[in-house]
Amino acid sequence: MHRGTGSPIGLHRVVEPAGVLPQAAWRLDATPEIYDDEVRIAVERLNLDAASFRQLTEAHASPGAVRDEVVRIVGERGKMHNPVTGSGGMLVGVVDEVGPHSPLGLAPGQKVATLVSLTLTPLQIRDGLSGWDGHSEQVPAAGTAILFGRSIAAPLPDDLPPPLALAVMDVCGAPALTERVVKRYDAPRVLVIGAGGKSGSLSMAAARRAGASGVVAAVPTPDEADAVADSGLADDVVVVDARDPVAVAQVVTPTADVTVVCVDVPGAEGAALLATASGGTVIFFSMATSFSAAALGAEGLAADVTMLVGNGYTPGHAAMALDLLRTEPGVHRLFTRRLADLDLDMRVSP
Amino acid sequence: MHRGTGSPIGLHRVVEPAGVLPQAAWRLDATPEIYDDEVRIAVERLNLDAASFRQLTEAHASPGAVRDEVVRIVGERGKMHNPVTGSGGMLVGVVDEVGPHSPLGLAPGQKVATLVSLTLTPLQIRDGLSGWDGHSEQVPAAGTAILFGRSIAAPLPDDLPPPLALAVMDVCGAPALTERVVKRYDAPRVLVIGAGGKSGSLSMAAARRAGASGVVAAVPTPDEADAVADSGLADDVVVVDARDPVAVAQVVTPTADVTVVCVDVPGAEGAALLATASGGTVIFFSMATSFSAAALGAEGLAADVTMLVGNGYTPGHAAMALDLLRTEPGVHRLFTRRLADLDLDMRVSP
Repeated sequence: MHRGTGSPIGLHRVVEPAGVLPQAAWRLDATPEIYDDEVRIAVERLNLDAASFRQLTEAHASPGAVRDEVVRIVGERGKMHNPVTGSGGMLVGVVDEVGPHSPLGLAPGQKVATLVSLTLTPLQIRDGLSGWDGHSEQVPAAGTAILFGRSIAAPLPDDLPPPLALAVMDVCGAPALTERVVKRYDAPRVLVIGAGGKSGSLSMAAARRAGASGVVAAVPTPDEADAVADSGLADDVVVVDARDPVAVAQVVTPTADVTVVCVDVPGAEGAALLATASGGTVIFFSMATSFSAAALGAEGLAADVTMLVGNGYTPGHAAMALDLLRTEPGVHRLFTRRLADLDLDMRVSP
Repeated sequence: MHRGTGSPIGLHRVVEPAGVLPQAAWRLDATPEIYDDEVRIAVERLNLDAASFRQLTEAHASPGAVRDEVVRIVGERGKMHNPVTGSGGMLVGVVDEVGPHSPLGLAPGQKVATLVSLTLTPLQIRDGLSGWDGHSEQVPAAGTAILFGRSIAAPLPDDLPPPLALAVMDVCGAPALTERVVKRYDAPRVLVIGAGGKSGSLSMAAARRAGASGVVAAVPTPDEADAVADSGLADDVVVVDARDPVAVAQVVTPTADVTVVCVDVPGAEGAALLATASGGTVIFFSMATSFSAAALGAEGLAADVTMLVGNGYTPGHAAMALDLLRTEPGVHRLFTRRLADLDLDMRVSP
């Protein structure tokens, strides 16, 4: 028995406040029973947004307390929407039921990743996250999630371990938008701040392919600098604190035409602006970005710079990011290095 | 006796935390004694940012309490930087002393407006704002402010009442960026959300001049709709709550190619995204914009939309905005209507 047809953007699942979009809602109705145009996913794994996981880890004394907080948030809000950072993440699961009017083209039994944020995905957790040690942003989970008519989900590729594919798809908006912006310039100089992370490594590869004349990688530690240098994705690697604009501007000379901000710490707006040339573009992918710090920082520096809010959606973004992973050994090395610490099941076939 | 040469971006005035830009600092050194490349302004009037003034008014019971809070913030931070909204405003004053190495080209006795935000302008208030009733964002004030080598200030025009010129220059980044974006499209349809306000009315005029094929004005009240209709700056005027994305999308059909967000309330991100066509651009000028709500909202709607952080600085922005005021009667009418409630001294010559 179905519940009728829902709104394609999920308005029918908003509990409070009334009338807002699911992303802006404080609480969603996460009931597993689907509407006619919805899809229910049997959840296997959550992938928390980096800024969210970092905040949770800093705010809670133990990994157990981090786990309890995630369970509490999902129970209270009907979605994994970190109230401090405003960010979520994504999930992997198996298609459980497809409503007769779902336009997504999914079939029961398919293993998929959701490409819309957890901040707007109705979610119920059934196992108290008992399989998660709270040490990593990849969270084994049992429960149910709901996809709306206009949600986006992609089947997991057969040739990649699921945690690796999930990690790539989580940030696939970054290389797609980086490519689009870099192509607007003639052989631009590109700076990637936070280059050693997931979105950073994909953005470096995308910038190079899109015609960058040089790629500068800014990273916080010598260890990460070694890894990025080893990847071959950057022409220069600098070790610098992204929260120190003067230091960043000193090591990035000449300034960049396109700067891509991929850090997971707040306070990188000034560095990005100071390191970018007049007429250049800054793309903010970091969920820790402050709108007012960016807007007023540019005005305060009299910086004639275009500032983009990193949009997580560009058509074809997942396929492009997976292609970069498959064809750029440097991207593959940085991703597997990052995932190596997490003790994940990296077998290709589940 | 001068204090040596400062940093052109004001780093020498940052007290804490060390090493950040003045805008990101918690506290600035607002000592009136200038460095060799600085300029001291004898402050006459502050113009608080609309989002900041609204927050202060909502958080404090009486106009007197609003005034006390502004005095307290400036005393504590050495600048008028609202800690809740992260925004500031601008000021008008008379050039008091010019350091021998200042590159700004100002002379003592000139009446100027600062075009950099109050969030990074060292400020001391001497009169406890005793001339301000706390009822309006235009704040008569006596005190001192400091301009750095790279700050921007513009002489007040001779032909306009200072409060009017100040109100225009406060938001002059909006029409300049709107013009630039509209010109990227071929006869685009433009939606201005919050069209009756200062940045909204200038943005409508700029969009029309830059080649918009149609301008839709969204305003919150019938009164404001009448005023905007009377201005002749819009082809359509709709009364709608900008925080209600579904309602906004229903009245804006077809969707806009360029959407300009000029409201002073939080929560307009979803409406802007839903009302904008695929391939379109949203420019967020509202200081109440949430970065994560914009980024995740676009992803959640699978919206292939370019989202710009409204930059308060574009070369030539003040001259362009003043020109719109002088040559577009509709802009002039909307500005004087807005200022009429404030009981200001509107004489041209001070």
